[in-house]
Amino acid sequence: MRVYSVSWQDRAAEKRASTLAKIPSEWRLSPTELDLASKQRDLTGPFIEGFLDPTEVSIIHMDSVPIVNAIKSGELSALKVTTAFCKTAAIAHQINNCLHEIFFDQAIERAKELDRFLATNNQPVGALHGLPISLKDQFHVKGVDTTMGYIGHIGGNMGISDPLDVNKIESQITKELLSQGAVLYCKTSLPQTLLLGETVNNLIGRTLNPHNQNLSCGGSSGGEGALQALRGSTLGVGTDIGGSVRIPAAFCGIFSLKPTPERISYRDMANTDPGQNTYRSTVGFLSTSLGGLELGLQSVLSTRPWIRDPAVVPIPYRQDVIDDILSRANLDNGTATGGRPLKLGILWTDGVAEPHPPVRRGLQMVAEAVRRAGHKLVDWNPPSQRTAKRVHVSFLYADGAHDVHKHLDLSGEPLIPNLEKSFKLRDPIPLLEYQDLTLRGLDYEIKYAEYWNSTAEDDGDMVDAVIMPVAPHAAVIPGKYYHTGYTEAINLLNYSAAVIPVTKADKNIDVVDPTYKPVDDFDRMNWDAYDPEIYEGGPVGVQIVARKYEEEKVLAIATVVHAALTAFKKEGRVGEKFKIANRL
Amino acid sequence: MRVYSVSWQDRAAEKRASTLAKIPSEWRLSPTELDLASKQRDLTGPFIEGFLDPTEVSIIHMDSVPIVNAIKSGELSALKVTTAFCKTAAIAHQINNCLHEIFFDQAIERAKELDRFLATNNQPVGALHGLPISLKDQFHVKGVDTTMGYIGHIGGNMGISDPLDVNKIESQITKELLSQGAVLYCKTSLPQTLLLGETVNNLIGRTLNPHNQNLSCGGSSGGEGALQALRGSTLGVGTDIGGSVRIPAAFCGIFSLKPTPERISYRDMANTDPGQNTYRSTVGFLSTSLGGLELGLQSVLSTRPWIRDPAVVPIPYRQDVIDDILSRANLDNGTATGGRPLKLGILWTDGVAEPHPPVRRGLQMVAEAVRRAGHKLVDWNPPSQRTAKRVHVSFLYADGAHDVHKHLDLSGEPLIPNLEKSFKLRDPIPLLEYQDLTLRGLDYEIKYAEYWNSTAEDDGDMVDAVIMPVAPHAAVIPGKYYHTGYTEAINLLNYSAAVIPVTKADKNIDVVDPTYKPVDDFDRMNWDAYDPEIYEGGPVGVQIVARKYEEEKVLAIATVVHAALTAFKKEGRVGEKFKIANRL
Repeated sequence: MRVYSVSWQDRAAEKRASTLAKIPSEWRLSPTELDLASKQRDLTGPFIEGFLDPTEVSIIHMDSVPIVNAIKSGELSALKVTTAFCKTAAIAHQINNCLHEIFFDQAIERAKELDRFLATNNQPVGALHGLPISLKDQFHVKGVDTTMGYIGHIGGNMGISDPLDVNKIESQITKELLSQGAVLYCKTSLPQTLLLGETVNNLIGRTLNPHNQNLSCGGSSGGEGALQALRGSTLGVGTDIGGSVRIPAAFCGIFSLKPTPERISYRDMANTDPGQNTYRSTVGFLSTSLGGLELGLQSVLSTRPWIRDPAVVPIPYRQDVIDDILSRANLDNGTATGGRPLKLGILWTDGVAEPHPPVRRGLQMVAEAVRRAGHKLVDWNPPSQRTAKRVHVSFLYADGAHDVHKHLDLSGEPLIPNLEKSFKLRDPIPLLEYQDLTLRGLDYEIKYAEYWNSTAEDDGDMVDAVIMPVAPHAAVIPGKYYHTGYTEAINLLNYSAAVIPVTKADKNIDVVDPTYKPVDDFDRMNWDAYDPEIYEGGPVGVQIVARKYEEEKVLAIATVVHAALTAFKKEGRVGEKFKIANRL
Repeated sequence: MRVYSVSWQDRAAEKRASTLAKIPSEWRLSPTELDLASKQRDLTGPFIEGFLDPTEVSIIHMDSVPIVNAIKSGELSALKVTTAFCKTAAIAHQINNCLHEIFFDQAIERAKELDRFLATNNQPVGALHGLPISLKDQFHVKGVDTTMGYIGHIGGNMGISDPLDVNKIESQITKELLSQGAVLYCKTSLPQTLLLGETVNNLIGRTLNPHNQNLSCGGSSGGEGALQALRGSTLGVGTDIGGSVRIPAAFCGIFSLKPTPERISYRDMANTDPGQNTYRSTVGFLSTSLGGLELGLQSVLSTRPWIRDPAVVPIPYRQDVIDDILSRANLDNGTATGGRPLKLGILWTDGVAEPHPPVRRGLQMVAEAVRRAGHKLVDWNPPSQRTAKRVHVSFLYADGAHDVHKHLDLSGEPLIPNLEKSFKLRDPIPLLEYQDLTLRGLDYEIKYAEYWNSTAEDDGDMVDAVIMPVAPHAAVIPGKYYHTGYTEAINLLNYSAAVIPVTKADKNIDVVDPTYKPVDDFDRMNWDAYDPEIYEGGPVGVQIVARKYEEEKVLAIATVVHAALTAFKKEGRVGEKFKIANRL
């Protein structure tokens, strides 16, 4: 048995302390303040803003595009913006435990440099000039560790084999963001292995949901979701192999874009089991606005990432696709305007795990909003997500957790309790079984495409995109995330998807529905996990799914749907309607 | 041990006879004629044309685009064209053994139907209206077997699991070609397993090179190459996982396009070990002209294949890329015209297997032609093809030949002698080794891209494409194809490539070079296999390689290079120059 000179607990504690020590003393909270925070259900809005001055509050209320515009026009300096977001992130981390790495000093220097550049050259460095961008702790940033939550990678960069590169390397997309003028200032928390819909690891423990501390912030890009819910960031990068940018967005009330893998670069990143390249993780964006997602995607694509990363497919940003869709709707309220209205599918349930009442209501709200806006809506009954989940999960577990244990063994840290069973070390599956699974995955893709194509049979038009739950529940109670099929099916299909926030669980409306009869024990386990009291205030989002490499399309459709939903909510009759009928 | 009621030899003989029986009696050759053919070194041109009437000769001398234009304009009927190509293919098969399936009756009916359509509607069915297109025996065509050379698949469609689909199914690309007006009339030979640079199987035996019957036609799309060398087709579809559309094109003196996998559809095709989806085979075109390749690519992409085949990346045909490159050269002679000249790399040798004198000379001719046309040429020294070949081949053998033996066992037929060693049944490699190989492949891609990018360091411009040998020899002596690294490296990179014909081995010019010192035994084995007498008349082609998904670019550059080469050859000083210096 391997002997470790320092216990993993001590190494973790030391790292946590050194991270905290990077927060300037004037931004440190007192034990009383920390205690007060721990007793809050909801840390967002007024609570966290209580630690900021009015100017800071006004800055962090801005979204990505207005921030960049204000800096470019000289209305705000990059330094002022950066300082406001660093301070907010500092407070967020103290009350919400959402950061792995803090490098505010680098950020402040960078912001000053950008301000000088703008003053000297009278033009910005790029489309992201001065915008603070947070990164999930898989992206390498110069001068900073990448632990991915593993104790054994403290002081290093996971995934980098050359010791000379430690703390010197940047992921390709990090370089791209910097080349466009981004300010990098913190790296956010994630779960051990990345393969969990919650955020907990042995390095920092657990990140809870800022909207409701009974609940998880989701995962694996959970720290991103939490930080943005607290407005400590307006745009961040995460990754998604089973739902990891969509789940935290939905659970934290923000937006996200999961591209098809190979649309943007994954080069020089830390990752779990990178040799499993059949179903790939993809870099995605999380943002407080759809405009932020568009800005992020457009910025990195403008650098032609495929030249440097041969895995990236050379498809430039397609503004024409966005323009076409947006020309078909009034952007004030999403109403169809003359051209062909959108035709959207809606998945009410996958028949494996029935969505809880708050999610049902969320879907109903979106459906009603889309219909009122004059778009077409059809029920979606695709090939079973049960098959998709079974096949997809087999790839994630194919190596018998050998990769994960290699990283655990560096420090002697154990698996976190949630993963003890699924990531127990065992034999990898045989290659012939792996190949057979590959064929089953390809077959599912084909069958799904055929179903999608069949939607043209009624009126000649195929469905443009599909509205789906992200999970069968609002932001989940820790330990009760039983069914990831709603997101994993989309990974097996390699489709593009965007998440928009819809509503929050409301114990007065989303009452337990005693009429639903679960189809089996699994469905019952999920169904019985709904508790209106605990879930109260937990965010609900939906994903809007289009086919492979349709990132621009999915963003434009999300924009229309979100506009329709916003207008619908403004009518104020949401509660009234949905209190009575919480199922269509 | 399994017992078979009919021997595989008898089943094969019966199938061969039934295929021959599909040739109308008036197109059958006499034993004397067959004997005469067997004694020819070169079956192309005058020899095969001796069996045709002048009108037929004039038709088969036309390339794909002129044929379609002539049919569309009413100058020729689809029936007349189809009949001429069916007859030529019938003779080609009798003297060259290049077909697996013959369905001239279907073709003639189809041609009549197309003629009626044009007469009635005054417009063509599509861009391929009336063009006879041949298919490698992996593509399913209604009413026809797909054996892929396996005796056990006679009377069936390999790769199709539902018995109700037998002889009823079409590959997606077959449908696309038909939707554009193609006439299908025969399926061409290939080697057992597809994984061989020659064409030999237990069903029809061996297909030799029509230009020199001492040599192989190449493989695996060998029947395509041979048929087109005999002008029994102007456009055909093949596949390439290790060189299989490039090798037969180079060996048979024709053109080919190997796209990046997933540019066009591979749906519903027969294939070897389809569960090995890490390095994918790709459908490609072989043609007697570059115009034919463009026509083929443009036609299938115009049908938006990604809607039906989710594996296809949604990149439409990019005419602007072609126009940009062609605008920079005079198409009469390839000369650079004002705009930025092309910057081309040239790989003289991979250091693993030195190209034989005919290939060296071919490269020198292309280099000299390109330089004289005013384009830039730089030596190409990429990461070693030794690594690429080792990694790539490991994927092809990863399943321990289980898939291949499944097909052999249907009839009891043995492996062909060339493959006895490499496809001996054995344990598949362990998954962790497979994943490690995957990482090594990805690393090679990255390193190669970095090398490519470094070519901008001298003058700010990256190399547009690279001229490379297809093999270290002209059309190979059967059994002496030792090194497939020149093509396999490009498959590991998933790059796009086009092949153009350059020259033919000439014993008077391409003399043995006693000054070359092989680097090791392997290099010596290849080097010593050069025999000027046997190789005399064997075609030499080069591949022009661009990055992933650059099919249009590679075709346009091939057009410029081919124009420059043609002009250079017309100067007539080729022999004079290259007799003296057969190495640069």
